Amino acid sequence: MQTYSTMRTAYEARMAAHADRQGPFAGGCAWVRGQYVPAEEAQVPLFDLGFLRSDLTYDVPAVWDGRFFRLEDHLDRLERSMAKLRLAPPVDRDTLRAILIEAVRKTGLRDAYVDIIVTRGRFRPGVRDPRNTETALYAFVIPYVWVMPLAQQPVGGSAVVTRDVRRIPTGAVDPTVKNLQWGDFTRGIFEALDRGANWPFLPDGNGNLTEGIGYNIVMVKDRTVMTPGRGVLEGVTRKTVMEIATAQGLGVHLGDVPVGGLYDADEIFMCTTAGGIMPITTLDGEPVGGGQVGPVTSAIWDRYWALHADPVLTLAVNYD
Amino acid sequence: MQTYSTMRTAYEARMAAHADRQGPFAGGCAWVRGQYVPAEEAQVPLFDLGFLRSDLTYDVPAVWDGRFFRLEDHLDRLERSMAKLRLAPPVDRDTLRAILIEAVRKTGLRDAYVDIIVTRGRFRPGVRDPRNTETALYAFVIPYVWVMPLAQQPVGGSAVVTRDVRRIPTGAVDPTVKNLQWGDFTRGIFEALDRGANWPFLPDGNGNLTEGIGYNIVMVKDRTVMTPGRGVLEGVTRKTVMEIATAQGLGVHLGDVPVGGLYDADEIFMCTTAGGIMPITTLDGEPVGGGQVGPVTSAIWDRYWALHADPVLTLAVNYD
Repeated sequence: MQTYSTMRTAYEARMAAHADRQGPFAGGCAWVRGQYVPAEEAQVPLFDLGFLRSDLTYDVPAVWDGRFFRLEDHLDRLERSMAKLRLAPPVDRDTLRAILIEAVRKTGLRDAYVDIIVTRGRFRPGVRDPRNTETALYAFVIPYVWVMPLAQQPVGGSAVVTRDVRRIPTGAVDPTVKNLQWGDFTRGIFEALDRGANWPFLPDGNGNLTEGIGYNIVMVKDRTVMTPGRGVLEGVTRKTVMEIATAQGLGVHLGDVPVGGLYDADEIFMCTTAGGIMPITTLDGEPVGGGQVGPVTSAIWDRYWALHADPVLTLAVNYD
Repeated sequence: MQTYSTMRTAYEARMAAHADRQGPFAGGCAWVRGQYVPAEEAQVPLFDLGFLRSDLTYDVPAVWDGRFFRLEDHLDRLERSMAKLRLAPPVDRDTLRAILIEAVRKTGLRDAYVDIIVTRGRFRPGVRDPRNTETALYAFVIPYVWVMPLAQQPVGGSAVVTRDVRRIPTGAVDPTVKNLQWGDFTRGIFEALDRGANWPFLPDGNGNLTEGIGYNIVMVKDRTVMTPGRGVLEGVTRKTVMEIATAQGLGVHLGDVPVGGLYDADEIFMCTTAGGIMPITTLDGEPVGGGQVGPVTSAIWDRYWALHADPVLTLAVNYD
């Protein structure tokens, strides 16, 4: 994490500059039923099946230093998720992209968490048929979210493998469709907190690791990065990590990761768009490897943030 | 179903009388953030974790012919669900009961579906900690909902055992906590529709039956009613069915129900507050038993609706 201080200083300067911004959208902007509204005022109809059945999918691209990172990857995945759920896209891709860019522009946020939610919409009156609804789009832009606070990242966080809860299996709810049915995750976060940690790692019930509350999990052993190949979200950050690892000459294992292997890992980190590369240095109360952020994690961290200026992977927002 | 015509005629007369009712609440009444609003106008804040994480529980008592049926059983279960999720009750039980009664009174509905939803509420600013939120109550009263149309009940419906989806296991999300994480159910309804049926029965992945989209499943074999004892909601209608069966001298089996046994059943029915006792006469395209509503189902149906006038099990609404 050689670039940590530079990156953090620049980020905090941008946040400080934004703090002076006035106007209804400075705190966040949402797109609800065809209109931009201040995020705080955004509402969802009670009868939307996104609320009454959690019948929805979502995706979360981020904006960093004024640029969307891998936006097209997120939109690709959103389209795959909608297809799997048989949700007709409420708007076409170009329209969606334009809505997101405009929402970011309205906030003026240089660093933003961008959430796109597509729901089944409402049943037509008197008919409980999910095939005939009009799907609904909700989106919102708020200040960048850190699943692990940036200030904590050089030290790393504390995780547990959950004992009381397993991940929902693919045969029940497909985790490659990004969803908000977080019952298992919510149980996991309570268990982690009860056990003095902050981040739960959920097993699959068959001895293998899955994922945590919105993040993929990566372990490093003998200079190979290992992450579960199924039963998890196909993360865009995970994809970036595997590309970086390959470019850095590391081994990459995308497949089953036995839970027991975690306790013998050299390094562990979590990865997600909302927080990036997040080192875990304590697992079940014991140090991971040497108990400090390891060299592989550090190098991936540096490269991950450097890529946020890469013109191929990013899309600059015009704030004028 | 000897009482079917009488019951249906009376119900339709009440509905017809209600159709003339005017006023903002005639179509339904919701309770949202401390206020009664017309159901159609009810909204949920976008940032409520009930929407953003499906972090909620709910319950559905019904009003039939002006009387709540087993309201206290529903409130008992709601309280157990909240406790299991560590959701602090947003209001006390007497207050909740009074809100529901008043909402029904405002609608004037003699036959109503009453939905109570308790969510985690919102994270406090800057803190993603589910322990420190203020839980939120949403409730709504709308005309009685039929998971199987009343007109279809004497004929019975068509179900399938799902092949493409299993029920979420208890180790991931506890189904005794009534929840709206319907990803598996939604897959199930699409599969049922694709296969020319209307109601999915989900297996548990280990050869046993669980439940369907908001209903318990009961099979009858040799004058014993059999219904899954775990991995399912502990339904209030299911409880009523077991009480009726016992009183009628039937055997009751609450335990594992192998999926294979369904194909050898004498009778099958579904049961839920929103629809009552709903016969299934076709399973996977083949007739169940003789392909008609059987005598055990019919007798339970009659008694179930008769109990809706029982002063011990009901609470009359004062509409004045």
